[in-house]
Amino acid sequence: PASKLPRVGTTIFTVMSQLAQQHGAVNLGQGFPDFEPPQRLRDSLVRAMAAGANQYAPMTGLLRLREQIAIKSQRLHARRLDPETEITITSGATEAIFAAIAATVGIGDEVILLDPCYDSYEPAIELQGARAVHVPLLAPRFSIDWQRLRDAIGPRTRLLVINSPHNPTGAMLGAADLDQLAGLLRGTGILLLSDEVYEHITFDGAEHHSVLRHAELAGRSFVISSFGKTFHCTGWKVGYCVAPAALSAEFRKVHQYLTFCTFNPAQWAFADMLEHEPAHYLELPAFYQRKRNRFRSLLAGSRLKLLDVPGGYFQLADYSAIDDELDDVAFSRWLVEKHKLAAIPISVFYETPPATRLIRLCFAKNDDTLRAGADALCRL
Amino acid sequence: PASKLPRVGTTIFTVMSQLAQQHGAVNLGQGFPDFEPPQRLRDSLVRAMAAGANQYAPMTGLLRLREQIAIKSQRLHARRLDPETEITITSGATEAIFAAIAATVGIGDEVILLDPCYDSYEPAIELQGARAVHVPLLAPRFSIDWQRLRDAIGPRTRLLVINSPHNPTGAMLGAADLDQLAGLLRGTGILLLSDEVYEHITFDGAEHHSVLRHAELAGRSFVISSFGKTFHCTGWKVGYCVAPAALSAEFRKVHQYLTFCTFNPAQWAFADMLEHEPAHYLELPAFYQRKRNRFRSLLAGSRLKLLDVPGGYFQLADYSAIDDELDDVAFSRWLVEKHKLAAIPISVFYETPPATRLIRLCFAKNDDTLRAGADALCRL
Ligand SMILES: CSCCC(=O)C(=O)O
Ligand SMILES: CSCCC(=O)C(=O)O
Repeated sequence: PASKLPRVGTTIFTVMSQLAQQHGAVNLGQGFPDFEPPQRLRDSLVRAMAAGANQYAPMTGLLRLREQIAIKSQRLHARRLDPETEITITSGATEAIFAAIAATVGIGDEVILLDPCYDSYEPAIELQGARAVHVPLLAPRFSIDWQRLRDAIGPRTRLLVINSPHNPTGAMLGAADLDQLAGLLRGTGILLLSDEVYEHITFDGAEHHSVLRHAELAGRSFVISSFGKTFHCTGWKVGYCVAPAALSAEFRKVHQYLTFCTFNPAQWAFADMLEHEPAHYLELPAFYQRKRNRFRSLLAGSRLKLLDVPGGYFQLADYSAIDDELDDVAFSRWLVEKHKLAAIPISVFYETPPATRLIRLCFAKNDDTLRAGADALCRL
Repeated sequence: PASKLPRVGTTIFTVMSQLAQQHGAVNLGQGFPDFEPPQRLRDSLVRAMAAGANQYAPMTGLLRLREQIAIKSQRLHARRLDPETEITITSGATEAIFAAIAATVGIGDEVILLDPCYDSYEPAIELQGARAVHVPLLAPRFSIDWQRLRDAIGPRTRLLVINSPHNPTGAMLGAADLDQLAGLLRGTGILLLSDEVYEHITFDGAEHHSVLRHAELAGRSFVISSFGKTFHCTGWKVGYCVAPAALSAEFRKVHQYLTFCTFNPAQWAFADMLEHEPAHYLELPAFYQRKRNRFRSLLAGSRLKLLDVPGGYFQLADYSAIDDELDDVAFSRWLVEKHKLAAIPISVFYETPPATRLIRLCFAKNDDTLRAGADALCRL
């Protein structure tokens, strides 16, 4: 029989990380820090193992961790969550995205994606026998095109996926966007999946407007986040999903057969960090803003045109002054092979790539890496 | 819209573990050890964290770990595996089971399950828009009913799931079973999912006949195992899937969007154990046989009738001499509430439960726990 995912190859992140290794390149491609998670986090994990946290965690996640997430939500979004019924710990945000889609999207349904968008949404939709409907974000700020979004909604629309701060562009939704979205969805049965994995990485004093701040939207939403992004440990693979009790119940039905539960000692460790070191996430904007600014000033001598970065840990850069012929995939390949710098071409985040000349550079890196990457880019 | 999994509730394992906690019961229900993983394993994990293994692992899993799995396969099953194309590390065997099913089973397909069987297979099948066809195993040894299995195969049959050593019965397939299975599937396009998570827990000198020993079957099979079962750390959630390159390619397409990759430091630690302490798994049969035998002799004074346990870490027990009225769900509930002993009723593993009076008792426990459990059971 035919493949269930005929159009899927290996993700661009894996391809680029492999090319980076093969060519000894500076890797600003796949999004991960090249520095270590906090010592306290690692120490807590060791303590949890020693204390015997080595067997199955509860299917819904360690209660103490869910309680800490509820406290954080109360503090940041003034929303009270019930840890028992509204929060579920997952094996990374990727599992949470898959489970939310698998739990709600059926054969023949449509799911609206705003392009460019993260590459895991569409295969998860396809595996449900459903169809992704792509609506491009508007240049130059990658804002929502309300008219096209409205036009994309049809009788089969089951779910809309949003992502703020946005990967790959760094764009952020504001309070007015959430209001507009609420108006658009009012009276429909359309659910919302809000991918907020970069929730704590926001710049220039801008606030992250979580869907959790918006009572009306929160009532129909899966809100997904990731401890890997917040605590510099993408390889620990712990995320979570917040949703109203009825949606969480459906989410958990899938989660319990997808992975059942998640690496237990890390759940203890994240609970400890949230409880005793909230400063870690409260200071993350300043931590990453320093990196963003440093990277941008290192690139000032290059011929790249740098787009604004409101949030997240990616810098979009226009290379058309260096080469206006090569498309971004060809340019990225040339970059890693000839100049030992791995980036991500942004066309891979689109169904119908625009004629832009943009690459994505990850600045979640040590100063030395940022300098080496910028040096390579300034030589172009 | 309707639930995607209308018949799914909370798994019996979660329900029973919660009841056990609530009633302060001895928990012989959910299958997990109440003793610790090897010190060396925990030390290796700590070293891996300190060495910086805290970002994404490769999507297919740490190469060193896949290489060690290949070496183990060569040693135990005389089968050479290609770690690059035939082995994928997953977030527990549960993820591997789900991914194998999602990668191969389509809308309207049928998957044959042999009852009693583990509870995650059927929801994974249902989520594909496919249907499970249940074929009961034959009393008293839970062997395959070849005639009924043959009759269950139809034009829509896409996959057959087997499980040896078997949960909940402990039954094991022999070389002759694999030959018979190969004959049955020859000339069809039916794939095999072989759940072998208890591969290293076999008794009385009996050998585990992995599908990997059978070239013809291996060519159409996903073979799934679990480090949690082998290394006493069910809460670490690392498993793997072995399949021919073409099947692994489809498996990986799903895996990369289900969880992408798995907790990285544990992968380093399992690689270290497989490389430097193969004695751990080679001595597991003796380790668990001692527990099985001890538990059975402690139960000699009870009115339970103990079934044979060829493999795995579960004891099936017939309670009809104690109570022939209550079905196994009611009996298990009475047991945990009134006698503070949590067991698993085996009817939950069936589509059509037989009129047997059997409960499942996990003996992966410390001597003290086994004694306390047996004491409660002997008082009945
Ligand atoms: C799961 S690998 C991709 C990491 C990531 O989120 C990105 O680079 O966009
Ligand atoms: C994933 S919880 C169930 C554990 C188990 O395999 C069992 O008890 O049968």
